[in-house]
Amino acid sequence: MITFAARIRKEQPGIRAALADATNTLPVWVKPVAHHVLGQGGKRLRPLLTIFVARLLGYREPDIYPLAAAVELFHTATLLHDDVLDNADLRRGQAAAHRVFGVTETILAGDALLASGNSAVAAYGDARLTAVAAEAIAQTAGGEILELERQGEIAPDLSTYLEIVTGKTAWMIRAACEFGALKAGAEADRVRAAADYGLNLGIAFQMVDDALDFAPSERTGKPEGGDVREGKFTPPLFFYHASLAAEEQAVFARAFHERSFTDEAVNAVVTTIRARGFDEQARALADSYLQRARQALDRLTEGLPPSPERETLGAFIAHVRDRRA
Amino acid sequence: MITFAARIRKEQPGIRAALADATNTLPVWVKPVAHHVLGQGGKRLRPLLTIFVARLLGYREPDIYPLAAAVELFHTATLLHDDVLDNADLRRGQAAAHRVFGVTETILAGDALLASGNSAVAAYGDARLTAVAAEAIAQTAGGEILELERQGEIAPDLSTYLEIVTGKTAWMIRAACEFGALKAGAEADRVRAAADYGLNLGIAFQMVDDALDFAPSERTGKPEGGDVREGKFTPPLFFYHASLAAEEQAVFARAFHERSFTDEAVNAVVTTIRARGFDEQARALADSYLQRARQALDRLTEGLPPSPERETLGAFIAHVRDRRA
Repeated sequence: MITFAARIRKEQPGIRAALADATNTLPVWVKPVAHHVLGQGGKRLRPLLTIFVARLLGYREPDIYPLAAAVELFHTATLLHDDVLDNADLRRGQAAAHRVFGVTETILAGDALLASGNSAVAAYGDARLTAVAAEAIAQTAGGEILELERQGEIAPDLSTYLEIVTGKTAWMIRAACEFGALKAGAEADRVRAAADYGLNLGIAFQMVDDALDFAPSERTGKPEGGDVREGKFTPPLFFYHASLAAEEQAVFARAFHERSFTDEAVNAVVTTIRARGFDEQARALADSYLQRARQALDRLTEGLPPSPERETLGAFIAHVRDRRA
Repeated sequence: MITFAARIRKEQPGIRAALADATNTLPVWVKPVAHHVLGQGGKRLRPLLTIFVARLLGYREPDIYPLAAAVELFHTATLLHDDVLDNADLRRGQAAAHRVFGVTETILAGDALLASGNSAVAAYGDARLTAVAAEAIAQTAGGEILELERQGEIAPDLSTYLEIVTGKTAWMIRAACEFGALKAGAEADRVRAAADYGLNLGIAFQMVDDALDFAPSERTGKPEGGDVREGKFTPPLFFYHASLAAEEQAVFARAFHERSFTDEAVNAVVTTIRARGFDEQARALADSYLQRARQALDRLTEGLPPSPERETLGAFIAHVRDRRA
């Protein structure tokens, strides 16, 4: 049996080559920044989705790789600007780009990667692809902006949170899937199903990520409770806050708003969230979006014979659900 | 007789409305940043070029305005990121956006304006337009990057300078003109002529701007000799440097490289450049590019009857040549 891991590993050389082609045309000055951030790896979830959706729908041409890579370029550009905005020291356990190369270089490298991705998409001469890219980039920026705008705010429900993750994370994953369907020449219904699959997978992906913010740092390699400190109101914190008495809520809200939690206070929140299973509750919420992704995948594959690609797209759902680090 | 000023004034409400439409769909959080920078005015050179080129070639539909406005959105996004990179205090005589709204807000507002422009262009469903936009954005970023990379360097000729201004300034002006020709459905030769007109007009525009860096600040409203301080090797400095004896060149090069000029040293350079007419020499160089713009305009208008649009496009050339503030 060919495993999920083996199937996605098999695609890495093609993705890597397309990314190298794209970054080779970058201005000399920002190449090191691009190489630094792209060299930090990651599984290339987004390009993989483009490739597997296109293949599922019968598209076998190698020109899928530059399109798949373009989504990774957009994503990477976002990471670079995020690094500067968050003033983060680390990214994927390594030094953040702006700490190594400077703020100016990092902002411009982000702009250059965005431009490179746009050029790659434009080269296909298909206005639907460029429209999808433009919308996804706009949504990503919009989601990040909304997140910063609402930093430190307690909300009565998760609607703002959902709007944020839909923009900052899910929309680009949706675009990756839409790219695959459009390039394969799929009819409108299937394109929509691919988009729904990606959108819901993306929402769940971010929700699991936000649940993992409270997982032991030995496992994740990241400090625990970073979102508490940074005033990011994610599902585990929503459940936590809802469990507090009114006067405790007021104390929490003030510290959350002022970003004034002590290390002890953060640890206490983390401990309670784990003990009461609020992180698992967040994962259950993610499961409901994975359920929708599964239904969208059923629509996407309706009338198609079983295929390795179909299995792989199903395995992405399980991968997000089971992620523990 | 209808003057150039009256003709371009007449187009401002249409451009303003299209810009307002575009910025109204921006995330609430970045709207104030966008309004701040767009509210600082400027003549909207780029949108005007799109409109007049399209009209020259017989295109009269009002849907030219969002396309014209998109170029201004790209340009404005660049200004916002530049403000952060330059760490400038002022922009067009007013407080730079990042001083008013913060670095994070300004970077994200730039990203959002870029995305908004891309979405507007994508909405036309014409892959040639999106290809032109993508290339122009990539060239602009490339030019800025090269400029920063070469900051403080003395060059033996102006080839690097030309590469920088072609990227950071001229390419977007070229794109504005190409947009107009493409939207008008012009054949390939005329599209190329429109592009050449814009490119050469843009190079000259930046050269005149760089000559004005040495003009009296009472006239320009900007400090004199800013480019000396910042290590930007523009044509007046090229001519100045070439006029020095070898040992003076070495002293100048060191201070230029280290950005260590005193106010007195800057004033001395400015005085010499004006006295020896090196700024006028730079304007003469600009004239040679305006000459090429004129020839491109002749090709663009070949076989067409005289028209107000033709006159106006010619008047842009004179406007750049005669600009003194």
